[in-house]
Amino acid sequence: MSSTAQIGVTGLAVMGSNLARNFARNGFTVAVHNRTVAKTTALVEEFGHEGSFVAAESAKEFVDALERPRRLIIMVKAGDPTDAVIHEFAPLLEPGDVIIDGGNAHFEDTRRREKELREQGIHFVGAGISGGEEGALLGPSIMPGGSAESYQSLGPMLEKIAAKAKDGTPCVSHVGPDGAGHFVKMVHNGIEYADMQLIAEAYHLLRDVAGYSPARIAETFREWNRGRLDSYLIEITAEVLAHVDAETGRPFVDVVADAAEQKGTGRWTVQIALDLGVPVSGIAEAVFARAVSGHTDLRKAARGLAGPVAAPLPAEEADAFAAQVEQALYASKIVSYTQGFHQIRAGSDEYGWGVDLGAVASLWRGGCIIRAAFLDRIRTAYDAQPDLPSLLADPGFAQEIGEAQDDWRAAMVAAVSQGIPVPAFSASLAYYDALRAERLPAALTQGQRDFFGAHTYRRTDREGTFHTLWSGDRSEVRTA
Amino acid sequence: MSSTAQIGVTGLAVMGSNLARNFARNGFTVAVHNRTVAKTTALVEEFGHEGSFVAAESAKEFVDALERPRRLIIMVKAGDPTDAVIHEFAPLLEPGDVIIDGGNAHFEDTRRREKELREQGIHFVGAGISGGEEGALLGPSIMPGGSAESYQSLGPMLEKIAAKAKDGTPCVSHVGPDGAGHFVKMVHNGIEYADMQLIAEAYHLLRDVAGYSPARIAETFREWNRGRLDSYLIEITAEVLAHVDAETGRPFVDVVADAAEQKGTGRWTVQIALDLGVPVSGIAEAVFARAVSGHTDLRKAARGLAGPVAAPLPAEEADAFAAQVEQALYASKIVSYTQGFHQIRAGSDEYGWGVDLGAVASLWRGGCIIRAAFLDRIRTAYDAQPDLPSLLADPGFAQEIGEAQDDWRAAMVAAVSQGIPVPAFSASLAYYDALRAERLPAALTQGQRDFFGAHTYRRTDREGTFHTLWSGDRSEVRTA
Repeated sequence: MSSTAQIGVTGLAVMGSNLARNFARNGFTVAVHNRTVAKTTALVEEFGHEGSFVAAESAKEFVDALERPRRLIIMVKAGDPTDAVIHEFAPLLEPGDVIIDGGNAHFEDTRRREKELREQGIHFVGAGISGGEEGALLGPSIMPGGSAESYQSLGPMLEKIAAKAKDGTPCVSHVGPDGAGHFVKMVHNGIEYADMQLIAEAYHLLRDVAGYSPARIAETFREWNRGRLDSYLIEITAEVLAHVDAETGRPFVDVVADAAEQKGTGRWTVQIALDLGVPVSGIAEAVFARAVSGHTDLRKAARGLAGPVAAPLPAEEADAFAAQVEQALYASKIVSYTQGFHQIRAGSDEYGWGVDLGAVASLWRGGCIIRAAFLDRIRTAYDAQPDLPSLLADPGFAQEIGEAQDDWRAAMVAAVSQGIPVPAFSASLAYYDALRAERLPAALTQGQRDFFGAHTYRRTDREGTFHTLWSGDRSEVRTA
Repeated sequence: MSSTAQIGVTGLAVMGSNLARNFARNGFTVAVHNRTVAKTTALVEEFGHEGSFVAAESAKEFVDALERPRRLIIMVKAGDPTDAVIHEFAPLLEPGDVIIDGGNAHFEDTRRREKELREQGIHFVGAGISGGEEGALLGPSIMPGGSAESYQSLGPMLEKIAAKAKDGTPCVSHVGPDGAGHFVKMVHNGIEYADMQLIAEAYHLLRDVAGYSPARIAETFREWNRGRLDSYLIEITAEVLAHVDAETGRPFVDVVADAAEQKGTGRWTVQIALDLGVPVSGIAEAVFARAVSGHTDLRKAARGLAGPVAAPLPAEEADAFAAQVEQALYASKIVSYTQGFHQIRAGSDEYGWGVDLGAVASLWRGGCIIRAAFLDRIRTAYDAQPDLPSLLADPGFAQEIGEAQDDWRAAMVAAVSQGIPVPAFSASLAYYDALRAERLPAALTQGQRDFFGAHTYRRTDREGTFHTLWSGDRSEVRTA
C-alpha cells in the first residue's frame, strides 16, 4: 500500500466517520480504520463517492497508508480505550509523527500522554472538538493543544475542515501546549451547561410568572435571537419550545420528563475550578440543577413543602416582565463567561500555556454549541486589552451589565417572591454584587477562623499576619 | 522498656501533644514519639505531671512501649508525611495492631491505606478529629472509620477522651468501614464552610440593610444563640463582633482584611459531591465566596460597576428585618444540613459503609466546630425514620422551613434589591424551590440535548427512551 493519505482517522463511530468524511469532502485523502473492519467497509461503501478514502484493515496497514510525518486522529471513548489505542499505534510510529486525540479527554490525561509520547519524539495533540455529529461533518470548532510544531503541519488541514465564523475566519487555532486544548474544551462545556441553565430559568419565569405558553415563549426566544442574544442555543430553544408532540397534541416540552442528565465535562470544570481557586458559581449551579432534577426520590419527598404558587401577571404587565428576563439572562450570561474565561486564564497561568483568550473567543464563534454573536464582543474586549483581569473590567461589558442590573434584580425579586428556582441567575447576581462590594463579610470569616483555629488574619491598615489571644486577654500578637 | 502504654501518639505538634495529654489526663498511659526528640522531651517536661507518659526516642522504642494489640495514633500532616510514617511503623507491628490516622486525610487515601494494611493484618483507622487544638485537649468530636473489630478495643478509650454532649453521650462512634470516618469529617468541614458563610451573609444584611453596628449585631447573635440557632459558631461570632481593636478603637471586624482563606476540605466536599451527583450548592457557594474575597485583583477591577447603594432601614423597621434574617439563616441552615447529610448517605451507599446518619448527628453535638442544639433535632429526625430520604422530608423540619419561608424570601428580596451578595442564602432558597417544584425546566434542557446531541429523553406518559428527528420531519423514534 502506498503512503498517500494526508490524514488518518481511527475509531469510526458517528463522530469519527463524520470527521473522516469532512476531511475527504475537503479534498484530503483520508485513511480510515476501526477495530471491527465492518464499520470501515460500511463507511467507504456508503460515502466513498464523497472523496478519497483508504480503507485500512489493520493498524499496520493504517499507519503505512499515511504520508510522513504521519497525522492520525483517534476518535474513541475517552479514558482507557484512548490509552489502548495509543499503545497499539505508538510502536508503529516514528519521531515527528503526530497523534491527535479528538475525544473529550480530561486535560490531565492529555498532559500525561503528551509527556510520554514526547519522550518517543511523537507529537501528541489533545484536540477539543465541539459541534456534535453535525459539526464533525460540516465544520466543528476545534481546540488543539500540543506542540506549536505539530500545529504547523496540522493547522492548515484543520483550518480547512473547521467551521468558519461569519467573517470567514476558521474556528480553530493553536490553543497552547500539552493539555491546553482539552482544558479549553472542558471550560467550553462548562459554559454550555451554564448557558443552558440560564435559558431554562428564563423559560421557567416566562412560563410561570409571565404566564406565556410554550409557543409564545418560542416567539420570545426568536425575537431575542435577533438581538444581542443571537446564538445557536437560543435558536434551538425556540425550535424545541415551538415543537408540538404529535402523539398528544401537547407542547413537546410538557411531555418530556424533567430529569436532566449530565456527562462528565461540566462536573470536571467545577472540580478543576475549585483546585484553581476560581469561583465558577454559575456553572456549578447548572451542574447541581441537573442533579436536583434527577433526584426524583428527593423531589417526591419534598412535594408537600410550603411555598407560594406563582400567579401569572396580567397580560399588560407580562411583556414588560419578559423584557426584564431578557436583561437578567444577558447579564447572567456575561457573568458565566467572565467566570469561564477567568478559569481559562488561571489554568493557563498554572500550567504556563500562554493561552490567548481573544483567540479562544474567536474559535468558539462558529461550529460549537455555544456559538454566538456575543463571542465577537469577548474577542474585541481581549483584543483591546489582552491582560484584562476580568471580562467585567471591559468598559463595554461593564456598561451593559450596569444598564441591565435594575431589571436583573426585578426579575430575581419576582422569582424569589413567587417561588421559582433561579439558581444560576442568583449565583451570577451574587458574584456581581460580591465583586463590586467595597467590603465583604470575609473579614468576619477570618475573625472566626482565628478564634477557633488560630488561623491568623491580615489587617487593613498595615502589613503582617496577626492573631488575637481570644482565650487570653484578647490582645493582638504579630505572627509574621 | 516494658510494654505498659495503652496508646501511643506520634507527631507532637499542638494537635498531637494535646491529644496525648487528653489521654494522659484521662488515666491512660501514653507513649509519645516525635521525629525530632526535642519535642517529646519538652512535652514530658512541661506536662508530665498531668499523667503517665512514656517518652520514646526511636520508632522501635515507641512500638515496644505499647501493650498488645498496639494502638498508635499518627498526628502528622496529611498526604505524603502520613504515608512516610505508616511505612516506618508498619514493619514493626504485628497482626491485630491498630494504626489510627487522626489527620485530615482525603478519604480515598484512607481507603487505599486501609486496604494495604489489612493485607498485613493491621487495622487502619482513619479518624476524623474535630475541635481544633482546644478540642484535642479538652474533648474533640471523633469520627473513626476502619474495622468494627478495631473499634471494640479502641472505642472505650476514645469515648473517654471525646467531648460529651449535653446529655452525657460521648461524641464518638464507629462511623463505618475504611474511609467512612474521614469522609464524614470532610462533609463536617464542608458544612462548617456553609454555616460560616450563612452567618457572614446574615451579618452583612444586619450591617448594611438593618444599619446595625458590629456591637449591636453581636447583641443580636447573642440573642439568637439563646434560641434554636444555639451553637458554637453563633457564640463566637458574637465574641468576634463585640471585640474592639485596641490599636484603633474601631470594631475589630472593620480592621481585619476581608480576604478569607480556605484549606482543602471544603473544596474536597464539593468535588466529591459532584462525583456522587449530590447537589451541595450551599457548601459550593461558601467555598466560592472565600475565593471571590481573595481575588483582590478582580475586586479592584470591578470596583466601578453599577449597583444600588444599600440604604439602612429606619430604626423602627430594622428589628423586624433582623427577625427575617434570623428566619433566612435558620432556613438556609436546614438546607445546608439537608445537602450535607444527603452527601453522607450517597457516600455510604456508594462505598457500602452503612453509616447511621442519626449517630453522625449525635457525635457532632459536642467538641466540633459545628456543634449546635440543632444537631439534636437532626438525630431525632433520623431516629424516627432512619431511611429518611432527605432532612426536608422530616415533618418537623418541613414545618419549620415552611414557617420561615416568607421571611426568608423577604430577606432575599432586600438583599437583591439593595445589592448585598447573599450567595449561600440564594442557593439554599433555589434548592428548596427546585425540590418542591411540580415541574422543572430540566425538560427543556433534555429537549435541547436531544436537539444538538441526539442524547434522547424520557416521556412523562410512558416508559422508554426517545429521540426526535429534529433535522428531519421531527417525528419521534423510540430508541430503547
